[in-house]
Amino acid sequence: MDSENNNNNSTKSYINTTIASKKFYTSQFSFTPLRFNTMRLLMIVVILTTAIFGTAKWTPRLSPIDPSLKGENAASATVPSGFETFFYNQTLDHFNYKPESYATFQQRYIINSKWWGGASNNAPIFAYLGAEGPIDGDVTILGFLTENAPRFKALVVYLEHRFYGESNPLGSKGGPDSVDAMEESVKNETIRGYFNSAQALADYAELLLHIKHKLHAHNSPIIVIGGSYGGMLASWFRLKYPHIALGALASSAPILYFDDITPQDGYYSIVTKDFEQASENCYSTIKQSWDEIDRVASMPNGLLTLSQKFKTCSPLNNSYELKDYLDSMYASAAQYNAPPSYPTARICQGIDGATNATDVLDRVFAGLAAYRPGRACYNMTSGVSQTSIGWQWQVCSEMSIPIGITSNVSMFPSSPYDANEYVDDCVKRFGVMPRPHWATTYYGGQDIRMILSRFGSNIIFSNGLRDPYSSGGVLEDISHNILAVKTTNGSHCLDILSSLESDPEWLVKQRKDEVKIINGWFRKYYRNLHFLKH
Amino acid sequence: MDSENNNNNSTKSYINTTIASKKFYTSQFSFTPLRFNTMRLLMIVVILTTAIFGTAKWTPRLSPIDPSLKGENAASATVPSGFETFFYNQTLDHFNYKPESYATFQQRYIINSKWWGGASNNAPIFAYLGAEGPIDGDVTILGFLTENAPRFKALVVYLEHRFYGESNPLGSKGGPDSVDAMEESVKNETIRGYFNSAQALADYAELLLHIKHKLHAHNSPIIVIGGSYGGMLASWFRLKYPHIALGALASSAPILYFDDITPQDGYYSIVTKDFEQASENCYSTIKQSWDEIDRVASMPNGLLTLSQKFKTCSPLNNSYELKDYLDSMYASAAQYNAPPSYPTARICQGIDGATNATDVLDRVFAGLAAYRPGRACYNMTSGVSQTSIGWQWQVCSEMSIPIGITSNVSMFPSSPYDANEYVDDCVKRFGVMPRPHWATTYYGGQDIRMILSRFGSNIIFSNGLRDPYSSGGVLEDISHNILAVKTTNGSHCLDILSSLESDPEWLVKQRKDEVKIINGWFRKYYRNLHFLKH
Repeated sequence: MDSENNNNNSTKSYINTTIASKKFYTSQFSFTPLRFNTMRLLMIVVILTTAIFGTAKWTPRLSPIDPSLKGENAASATVPSGFETFFYNQTLDHFNYKPESYATFQQRYIINSKWWGGASNNAPIFAYLGAEGPIDGDVTILGFLTENAPRFKALVVYLEHRFYGESNPLGSKGGPDSVDAMEESVKNETIRGYFNSAQALADYAELLLHIKHKLHAHNSPIIVIGGSYGGMLASWFRLKYPHIALGALASSAPILYFDDITPQDGYYSIVTKDFEQASENCYSTIKQSWDEIDRVASMPNGLLTLSQKFKTCSPLNNSYELKDYLDSMYASAAQYNAPPSYPTARICQGIDGATNATDVLDRVFAGLAAYRPGRACYNMTSGVSQTSIGWQWQVCSEMSIPIGITSNVSMFPSSPYDANEYVDDCVKRFGVMPRPHWATTYYGGQDIRMILSRFGSNIIFSNGLRDPYSSGGVLEDISHNILAVKTTNGSHCLDILSSLESDPEWLVKQRKDEVKIINGWFRKYYRNLHFLKH
Repeated sequence: MDSENNNNNSTKSYINTTIASKKFYTSQFSFTPLRFNTMRLLMIVVILTTAIFGTAKWTPRLSPIDPSLKGENAASATVPSGFETFFYNQTLDHFNYKPESYATFQQRYIINSKWWGGASNNAPIFAYLGAEGPIDGDVTILGFLTENAPRFKALVVYLEHRFYGESNPLGSKGGPDSVDAMEESVKNETIRGYFNSAQALADYAELLLHIKHKLHAHNSPIIVIGGSYGGMLASWFRLKYPHIALGALASSAPILYFDDITPQDGYYSIVTKDFEQASENCYSTIKQSWDEIDRVASMPNGLLTLSQKFKTCSPLNNSYELKDYLDSMYASAAQYNAPPSYPTARICQGIDGATNATDVLDRVFAGLAAYRPGRACYNMTSGVSQTSIGWQWQVCSEMSIPIGITSNVSMFPSSPYDANEYVDDCVKRFGVMPRPHWATTYYGGQDIRMILSRFGSNIIFSNGLRDPYSSGGVLEDISHNILAVKTTNGSHCLDILSSLESDPEWLVKQRKDEVKIINGWFRKYYRNLHFLKH
């Protein structure tokens, strides 16, 4: 299914904004979707690339929204009124029966029952499966659940992923957004062993059954919803636990970006295309800039020149710092390339508008300044957050997503994925061997059309084709009830974010299509249920 | 689907046989199915009941054939010619990333490739998923794979379940059938933690991918086959790993005997019915005998009297020993109630034939003697085997199957299932709390028709309705490709055992129906594959 009808021209428009302050996050949010307009524009992505892991391309973050907003620049979001926070005494190790496996930890979940039609009506449950970050931020940003709950009289539940936020087995030292507990966890050889996707899915299974039991809602159908890594979890959850979830909405879930299913160039080829589409001049400026950065860096006082040109907060130690910073910026602008501001368009307007600049680097800086305006200086070193630390561990244990650049049509320098380097880096960092084939062993992915055309049902894979991660997504219907809903101009997880009045027609239609499909699942379910009970 | 057409009268017929000697097992078997005629008759079941675990009903063993044959009375079966034994360096812990999780163990698997059509023809693979016992015995007894391999040009593979046989992480001390390693494993708090069904399924996933990789058989479809507990594993494997197994034949798999899905009386009500159908007189004799045993036991020298009457090898310590022995005998006779000898019929012919005996206990003994003829004495104490020890652990960790007797229509005394007693027994024995709800959390089972009617495909649930475990089986088609194939007169796992010339028509038909269904899966698969490749 293609939700896109009109080729919206608003890619070139953008509105000015200012940088998020802590105040922005600590203030009480009302649940008016329009309030998040500003938030979408703040895409200060800190992507782990060569600065940390040598020269190989590293995995761009897999969050519905820019995780740095939640982890670095913000204190904990206050859960809006109407939402109640609970903790479940969760099994630490679902797949072993060792003395320490009987340990438990407190898993956070947040419920809003104001729209719920109740157990007696078998009213449904919308369950958001948390991904690699604290859950409270998601509550205010993921509009899909709350916006559609009234129509379906659904209970709305947000489940926090183990180890993030307040669901760290070591407790949330220094508060839910503090990195202390996370840092300690991933250093702790025993505790970090339980930090993986299969355990997280089993948490969700146990916790959702607990919630149904507590509410006597045995026959309430559950729809699981997730974005990015959380979208992968949602689709896997429906496949592994069909007896718990009736269906899944998996937004921007690159479930095919494992092993060699998706070509390694997939991600950056879309980043490149996004910029090429925004402006041919912008694209070629960026493409030229990498050699120019190296040329300047190699000159006497070259790094100082670069530091000054790019207004770095501290002097550059090497040219990689700058190149990584820009690489990450372009990637995240493409990934979170959402209307109405379209970050790629903003960068390109900066670059194209620097008509006085003859130097390619001045033009590139103008792009940066347009994307992240109003800053006295730019911090080129990656910050740390629960997300950045936790996701490193997940990548180094099992979430091995081979992204590289081999093609010279890319606007980035060549940087082929190096599996050995990945392993070496992980061994150096954590002392463990990654299991790069485990994801496809446990979850599948190869020949997905053939496998799932006669197996499974009730999954929506939604994607925006401007999202670089859509290259690893399911973009065609697999069967009449495993469906792909995609938009040509959409970006990462756009469909499940809160809607805006300014949303283009194609985005409104994508969401409507998804609701229609889910409604169809419910109709069949209730017909079945009625038939069984009478 | 009901494979049964004629109501075969051979229930009353039986042939004499002698007890298996070690020689029987150590001799070289040819692959003539007829040779196993004798074996089927040797159902010396050692079921763990009250003798070990107090007064609660315990879980009757879940093996395709009597496991005591393999564990207690026999040395290791010699793998027949044409079969090659291999070992795979298997991951000990698939769901954790702790230093010790990177440990591996040697998992045994046995391959016969003489019928295989080869990777270039995408010829299929029949994979037998080992259950709670050494795999080598299964190779000679499970005829379904080898008998059907020529027709499908299939590779035949038998995978050993972790901890059994030569696949014990502690090694196979004292040989593959020795209980030493198993005893040590279940006492070892660390190592036994990895001894569970989810880990075993993940073993099979990894190992089957390894075999396909080794043989370059990427497009060879795999059918997994299992019986009893192994049948549960087969159906769960298809549900959890549809990308690895195209389909599953789950023979006599009581996947619904968890939590409260199946009434606790299910098992023993079928045992009762089997005896009632064999002979009304036999049934009422057995029904009377329990009180009579208690009455005699309470008299002066009563236990001595009972010991003499029942020719026990050593004097009885209490009446439970005798009652447990008889309970187990009736249960296993019903469970393995296979043609041509039909053990229930043999017991009843003994009882009914004791026309000179006025004492009810003499008649019961005549039943025992008819079932297990030619013995100087009867050993009432349960023997130990890898199976009995290993299965105790599995029951006490997760395979909690609540079997009890509440109804007075049973031919057994009342003995309601006591969940608290189960927990107490397990805590006393292993020091761990069982997780009785984990099986339904991970595998489902509740509302299975509604859940799977629109999810999943290519599973055959086969059952014989005289098998007490069929009470927890799937007995009706769930969808057009999740099918129940049952026979009115069949017993436990009969369909996957080697065929005999004397097999009744309904059994021949059941197997034919299964082959036809599997053939349909292949036809669709190859059509799909052809379509994708051209």
